[in-house]
Amino acid sequence: MYGLIGKITAVAGKSDELASILVEGTKNMPGCVSYTIAKCTEESDLLWITEVWLDKSNHEASLQLPAVQAAIGKGRPLIAGMERVATTNPVE
Amino acid sequence: MYGLIGKITAVAGKSDELASILVEGTKNMPGCVSYTIAKCTEESDLLWITEVWLDKSNHEASLQLPAVQAAIGKGRPLIAGMERVATTNPVE
Repeated sequence: MYGLIGKITAVAGKSDELASILVEGTKNMPGCVSYTIAKCTEESDLLWITEVWLDKSNHEASLQLPAVQAAIGKGRPLIAGMERVATTNPVE
Repeated sequence: MYGLIGKITAVAGKSDELASILVEGTKNMPGCVSYTIAKCTEESDLLWITEVWLDKSNHEASLQLPAVQAAIGKGRPLIAGMERVATTNPVE
């Protein structure tokens, strides 16, 4: 398996809207085992994303999916910053 | 919902063993929506834990479950350090 943990900082006050766009855009992605979107309690503009994929190629392919492309387009103006915190090997 | 993101550093060379203990000990926890255990690719002794619970009380109650208590007992000697990275509000 292949995993990613990342942080996305939303434009101030926009994290709920951004989270909704991400939830909508990341349903039904082939090879996606789980995609956890969580608002940080301590910093309201910060989202934590924990991804689990069957393998790395599934993640790469997902970026071309129409729903994901649409979410990227809608979400981009609401994003102030992104950081990949870790690449992982999720354990079953 | 209630979420946690944490890092556990295993004693050198013990992360696979520790991950197995955690996987075994965290099955069937009431109110646990997901519990993702992932080895860090860049640092082989580091595990990332992403937890999603229906609410905070479910997480607190889980610490008293016999299987969790057993895992804590077995895992403790293999743990060099733990850090809670974030408390979160997971989005459905």
